[in-house]
Amino acid sequence: MKDRSLAEWNQSTVDPGKSGKEMHELIRKLYPICRSITGDGVRQTLKILQEYVPLSIHEVPTGARVFDWTIPMEWNIRSAYVRDPRGRKIIDFQKSNLHVLNYSVPVQSKVTLEELKAHLYTIPEHPDWIPYRTSYYKENWGFCISHNQLLGLTDGEYEVFIDSSLKNGSLTYGEYLVKGQTDDEILISTHVCHPSLANDNLAGIAIATFLTRYLRPLSTRYSYRFLFTPGGIGSITWLSQNEQQTSRIKHGLVLACLGDSGNITYKKTRLGDAEVDRVVMRALQETGDPHSILDFTPYGYDERQFGSPGFNLPVGCLMRTPHGEFEEYHTSADNLDFVKPEHLSHSFSFCRRVFEILEQNRTYWNTNPKCEPQLGRRGLYSAIGGNADGRLHELALLWVLNLSDGAHSLLDIASQSALSFEKIEKAAEALRKQGLLREQLRSFHG
Amino acid sequence: MKDRSLAEWNQSTVDPGKSGKEMHELIRKLYPICRSITGDGVRQTLKILQEYVPLSIHEVPTGARVFDWTIPMEWNIRSAYVRDPRGRKIIDFQKSNLHVLNYSVPVQSKVTLEELKAHLYTIPEHPDWIPYRTSYYKENWGFCISHNQLLGLTDGEYEVFIDSSLKNGSLTYGEYLVKGQTDDEILISTHVCHPSLANDNLAGIAIATFLTRYLRPLSTRYSYRFLFTPGGIGSITWLSQNEQQTSRIKHGLVLACLGDSGNITYKKTRLGDAEVDRVVMRALQETGDPHSILDFTPYGYDERQFGSPGFNLPVGCLMRTPHGEFEEYHTSADNLDFVKPEHLSHSFSFCRRVFEILEQNRTYWNTNPKCEPQLGRRGLYSAIGGNADGRLHELALLWVLNLSDGAHSLLDIASQSALSFEKIEKAAEALRKQGLLREQLRSFHG
Amino acid sequence: MKDRSLAEWNQSTVDPGKSGKEMHELIRKLYPICRSITGDGVRQTLKILQEYVPLSIHEVPTGARVFDWTIPMEWNIRSAYVRDPRGRKIIDFQKSNLHVLNYSVPVQSKVTLEELKAHLYTIPEHPDWIPYRTSYYKENWGFCISHNQLLGLTDGEYEVFIDSSLKNGSLTYGEYLVKGQTDDEILISTHVCHPSLANDNLAGIAIATFLTRYLRPLSTRYSYRFLFTPGGIGSITWLSQNEQQTSRIKHGLVLACLGDSGNITYKKTRLGDAEVDRVVMRALQETGDPHSILDFTPYGYDERQFGSPGFNLPVGCLMRTPHGEFEEYHTSADNLDFVKPEHLSHSFSFCRRVFEILEQNRTYWNTNPKCEPQLGRRGLYSAIGGNADGRLHELALLWVLNLSDGAHSLLDIASQSALSFEKIEKAAEALRKQGLLREQLRSFHG
Repeated sequence: MKDRSLAEWNQSTVDPGKSGKEMHELIRKLYPICRSITGDGVRQTLKILQEYVPLSIHEVPTGARVFDWTIPMEWNIRSAYVRDPRGRKIIDFQKSNLHVLNYSVPVQSKVTLEELKAHLYTIPEHPDWIPYRTSYYKENWGFCISHNQLLGLTDGEYEVFIDSSLKNGSLTYGEYLVKGQTDDEILISTHVCHPSLANDNLAGIAIATFLTRYLRPLSTRYSYRFLFTPGGIGSITWLSQNEQQTSRIKHGLVLACLGDSGNITYKKTRLGDAEVDRVVMRALQETGDPHSILDFTPYGYDERQFGSPGFNLPVGCLMRTPHGEFEEYHTSADNLDFVKPEHLSHSFSFCRRVFEILEQNRTYWNTNPKCEPQLGRRGLYSAIGGNADGRLHELALLWVLNLSDGAHSLLDIASQSALSFEKIEKAAEALRKQGLLREQLRSFHG
Repeated sequence: MKDRSLAEWNQSTVDPGKSGKEMHELIRKLYPICRSITGDGVRQTLKILQEYVPLSIHEVPTGARVFDWTIPMEWNIRSAYVRDPRGRKIIDFQKSNLHVLNYSVPVQSKVTLEELKAHLYTIPEHPDWIPYRTSYYKENWGFCISHNQLLGLTDGEYEVFIDSSLKNGSLTYGEYLVKGQTDDEILISTHVCHPSLANDNLAGIAIATFLTRYLRPLSTRYSYRFLFTPGGIGSITWLSQNEQQTSRIKHGLVLACLGDSGNITYKKTRLGDAEVDRVVMRALQETGDPHSILDFTPYGYDERQFGSPGFNLPVGCLMRTPHGEFEEYHTSADNLDFVKPEHLSHSFSFCRRVFEILEQNRTYWNTNPKCEPQLGRRGLYSAIGGNADGRLHELALLWVLNLSDGAHSLLDIASQSALSFEKIEKAAEALRKQGLLREQLRSFHG
Repeated sequence: MKDRSLAEWNQSTVDPGKSGKEMHELIRKLYPICRSITGDGVRQTLKILQEYVPLSIHEVPTGARVFDWTIPMEWNIRSAYVRDPRGRKIIDFQKSNLHVLNYSVPVQSKVTLEELKAHLYTIPEHPDWIPYRTSYYKENWGFCISHNQLLGLTDGEYEVFIDSSLKNGSLTYGEYLVKGQTDDEILISTHVCHPSLANDNLAGIAIATFLTRYLRPLSTRYSYRFLFTPGGIGSITWLSQNEQQTSRIKHGLVLACLGDSGNITYKKTRLGDAEVDRVVMRALQETGDPHSILDFTPYGYDERQFGSPGFNLPVGCLMRTPHGEFEEYHTSADNLDFVKPEHLSHSFSFCRRVFEILEQNRTYWNTNPKCEPQLGRRGLYSAIGGNADGRLHELALLWVLNLSDGAHSLLDIASQSALSFEKIEKAAEALRKQGLLREQLRSFHG
């Protein structure tokens, strides 16, 4: 039975320290799996998530058309290695799944050092780190190693072996809907296609998973749809299969890179001033912490697809340090030490606050719009003349009454009055109880 | 016979020094009266104003419903005092009407010092000043004294006596309409409910009174409606009784705290960019003096009621130092010395300038909109090639012609051209005389 | 046969140095001619221009009504001089046509020094320069001389002689249309009424002439209409005779004062954010050079008439140093040395770049608007992962796809993406070739 609102729950139940640790444990479980845009890695990942939340898992067959794209062959890999001229296994997929160029075709061959080098990828700037590289849409094979290892390779014949398969199969994604009081949806999407990279994006996966756990028992106004999809092709697939239902999506967030120590970064929706943009910016402002706001660009995570001109959905992207702006990005250094329970927990709490404001941000009509109503006889002035907090509450009451004309949401009123959203919502609650406000059905999408 | 326009009169007749002194004399007459939101104090005040202008006086009975409010019992007071344990009259209403908590219920009793203290109000920060306090909507009695006097009180039995009455009666307000050429109205409203407080708001009362005297003999485009009402409940009452006519109100000003030495402060209408907002800001800018512009808030004087969402009238508030921002506010130090003839006179002149711009701010159509008309053959270039003033006049002619497309008022043209409103109005007058402009009926309210 | 686009030609053919010199030669030819708003000076000038481009020449008779104006008498002058008391010819029209007040009526008389002085014009601040003065619409005669010469004049009888005529005749203007693929026109207008003044406006005349030569062989989207008209009355005449066709004018530039060493100045159209305004500002920004942007004022060159409220055409004005802001303005110092080939050439190239962006600034629909299209299989990702330039091209592709929703022109996309217009146009070209864009017919005029 869902009887507590999100706000009530927030005030009573959450133990951020505990969920931070639990999320990190989940990341630890998922870290060794070799994920890609298709294949068993994604399936195993979603299976583990099902221990936390009853995700439904969808399979879309190779060859299916999804808008301009075609579901590719499914890729799986069992083992891979390189032996040096002396027969020693010097590169081994078992040690790190980053060692293999993701989507490598199978190979078993003897090659010269020169030939091998054409298939090796390193990061000269970080000679100890292994890069993460992919070749989804062009057949190729390769190995990723540290630059130092590359420098130590001597001439001779190398044995290369990749036991992978690229066959008809399917693309796999997970989906979960937390049903709210209305069909209006908040979309939370996160990519599940990266192998052993902790911040990008096991952090996003863990936070999304724990958000479902958090929301399931609560009574919410919105329904919350969670997507766990391979990046790019996965969201394209979901949009292709759910085109008719996208009008339900009133707000959305792509979650990525949420476990590092950086400040929170919010990349706005394509609309630029959607309600979710204003809510996230308000929530960031209320934290008082440094943070970054980025304008939408058609480059990044799946907000690119949700924000394509044919959909133009109000979906922003929440990160800590953005992709490509931390040195560990797409390397073996994006590991279990790089993401910390306290950052996961902070990101998680921030998402909850965003949902809370979205849930509470209603628009009202003042039912007594001609002159002020007499607040005194309704007991709404009791705290007046008292302390500063009482006077701020009185002011909040007057602001909500004055701007509740069907055109200003509580968030708008908070902005115009320079009072906190919490104060404004508290005033609205007091007025609502006295019948002085009635809700305005909102027109979404600007 | 009204044959002179406001602008003509302004150029010829006003002696600001004289009106400053006369307004201060009126304030001196009104100062001793104990006003409240109802009662004989307001009646006496309006009677005195009738010596200056034939106000109509309205009485609205106790118990009448005015929107969400009810006209309260009428309050009157004859005398009040406190005697100390030795029988000396240590607090006396006759010495200052601020001594009694406004709307005190009658009381005749002997009380201990402790009991008395629960009914005494002081200002510790200004130990010599008497505060002004009210208790309109909650039955109570009390005395207001200097903090120094409080500190000198000794234990013992005190006699408290308040000969007041709270009975069925009526609420009283004054109203006066200066009829203009049209039914479009400019509203000027001022509160008349404060006892011996000079700046708040005998200054506003005096300026409003002298503005009626000034406007009566003139031929104006607008009608000017003056309201002298008790704060809050008074304007609510007027709005309730005149709801159908409020659409005539095209612009409005609440006048308050206009006699102190501070700079002029303008608080904008709820609309935020109403014509009156732009006119007042232009007039302030033209003075070249420091001044303050405040955004609308639903707290303050009767602009709260005029700007409630059900009316949303374009009524701003003109003050010098705003309420609560001068230390003398609501204390015995807001006395006859605190307001000066020169500040009254300055405020008065400023109101006149605002009315003048409002009267002159018309919107025109260029009757010869295709290419420039030939100004030379109409004698409009006579000053050209002459002095700088002549060149500015030429430029003003071109601006008025170019922007008189039915969408730009003269004020808009002044803003866009960065020429003074006076220059633009003078150019419009010259063009009007040549038939090169015809007036556009304006759509009001933005 | 017109087979090369403007952009192709720009990349291959232009030799700015050469055209700078050729334009200066044309200015040298035109310099000695005594032009006015009517008369043979304009005819001679247009004849010379016909050596460069087959202008059509229009004659509009004296007395014809053009809106609020009437075509004046035609003015011509053969000779003029002043003889001093000793019979020496001390002022001679043959030496400089600036010596005669333009539109002087004929005179033959003996006058005292005092009488003569009432008809002499000088510039005390520049005692060696001869001013340029006119009296088109008020009958007068006069001579313009250096202030030093004035100071040297001695008492005695002077002989004044002006062999001019003011008779029925006509006003003359030139017009040339470079036909493009559509009837949408870009208007280029320049004034041809000034006598021996090089920057104002032989520079504008020369650049307009060479722009016609440049555009004639090219295949352009727009038609380009060039007007060579006397200032003021000339553009009024053209507008009066072509009122019905003005809706074809989508963008326009008045060219004036384009040969001096100052930075480029652009005065915006009356609309303030017309496409031509944004294009010129973008082109200026791309130069990286200092420049000035001015708001529209109803004073200046013929943009006053094109921007009168009855037309409100999107016509801006391109200058280097604006009229009145260089000391040589309207004096004998605005001579052949004051304008330089390199400045003419620079102005000319800038106009070409403006036309190029206008030609290329189309608005598209993404034909595959739901999610991103798969660029890889179309070979559009070939450069990806390569150099920085390749990555910028990829980004430009994504921006063009994302914002090609029928509401953003390529210029808008360049602004929003902070990429150069060139990069955006190159991306659009690549997408167009793949059928991923189709053009949106634009609504003009905002």
